[in-house]
Amino acid sequence: MKFYDCSTAPSPRRVRIFLAEKGIEILTVEIDLAGGEQFSDAFLRLNPRGTVPVLVLEDGTAISEASAICRYIEAAYPEPRLMGRTPAEQGIVAMWDHYCEQEGFFAAAEALRNAARRLEGHALTGRDGYPQIPALVERGRTRVQRFLASLDERLAGSRYVAGEQFTIADITALVTVDFAARLRLPLPDASAAARRWYEEINARPSTTG
Amino acid sequence: MKFYDCSTAPSPRRVRIFLAEKGIEILTVEIDLAGGEQFSDAFLRLNPRGTVPVLVLEDGTAISEASAICRYIEAAYPEPRLMGRTPAEQGIVAMWDHYCEQEGFFAAAEALRNAARRLEGHALTGRDGYPQIPALVERGRTRVQRFLASLDERLAGSRYVAGEQFTIADITALVTVDFAARLRLPLPDASAAARRWYEEINARPSTTG
Repeated sequence: MKFYDCSTAPSPRRVRIFLAEKGIEILTVEIDLAGGEQFSDAFLRLNPRGTVPVLVLEDGTAISEASAICRYIEAAYPEPRLMGRTPAEQGIVAMWDHYCEQEGFFAAAEALRNAARRLEGHALTGRDGYPQIPALVERGRTRVQRFLASLDERLAGSRYVAGEQFTIADITALVTVDFAARLRLPLPDASAAARRWYEEINARPSTTG
Repeated sequence: MKFYDCSTAPSPRRVRIFLAEKGIEILTVEIDLAGGEQFSDAFLRLNPRGTVPVLVLEDGTAISEASAICRYIEAAYPEPRLMGRTPAEQGIVAMWDHYCEQEGFFAAAEALRNAARRLEGHALTGRDGYPQIPALVERGRTRVQRFLASLDERLAGSRYVAGEQFTIADITALVTVDFAARLRLPLPDASAAARRWYEEINARPSTTG
């Protein structure tokens, strides 16, 4: 297997943590996003969308999208379970992971990509160009703040995001919290439950990558 | 089990088709979205986000988000497989389903929700209010057109969206094509591969619901 990564980007970091939690070491290829390598012919042959991360299997099958790569890894390397064991657990984990991705991670991306000079003309990830929309900067920031508040509310009544076990939803939430901090939207001091959770998750060896 | 549905909304339709493909009949509760029933106290106790669909299990566990409900159903009722069998298949199906959801379904929602008078103040689904942003109408429509073009390209070389088997990705794509048609963005006449696929999928008994 070969993992196409970018060590500074938040999306592939979700997969790096997932791999580390599974104890999987993997050949990694760094893609120079700032230099536009994701739009090179060689990379577009792997992923026509022009995004990282991408996982390429032994037979050449290329899987893109962080959540889809994690789905492959979970099926191929089931232990430790990170996406739930029973059908109900699997549904609940998928629900929380989807929530963290849509309302947290993508909201932070919305705030960043519509503001950053270097992303002019690329307000959405991928090969298709889209102009920045200034109103989305404020909307994205509001969404992130609401997400952080809802995370605190959830964690006041639950040890982890999706329940009593550490799962992929904690990974997506942690990466989102760090992404938000880069946008100067830190976890508020008053968010005691989310801060307790963050300290625990952030201390796991998997998250340093 | 109890399924909280809205028969005119595209998102729960994804789950209705999934259930029908599995041959599952289920007690269904119609939620009056136009009347705001999704924001009633009773409904918010089931799903604090205020969205349909929601599936409530025998023990009272409530799962929201179409893709998460399908994940539960796939695990609880494995046959026929709609999310892939081998690990590689599971990853590839998840990738295409995510692509169809993000670039197709959510793009159509962006075009609709930022334009429709009745959705003023609700440009994103859920309980949190967000003002409409006129620039997103055009962006959403462009994204849908690009999605339809990429669907045709994919289906020129693949029988179904995720490969040689019918999967959840076909369901998400079909619901998106019908959603787009309501926005007067039909599959172009020249999209021969996507039209061949659409006719086949649309003829499945599951899609009439």
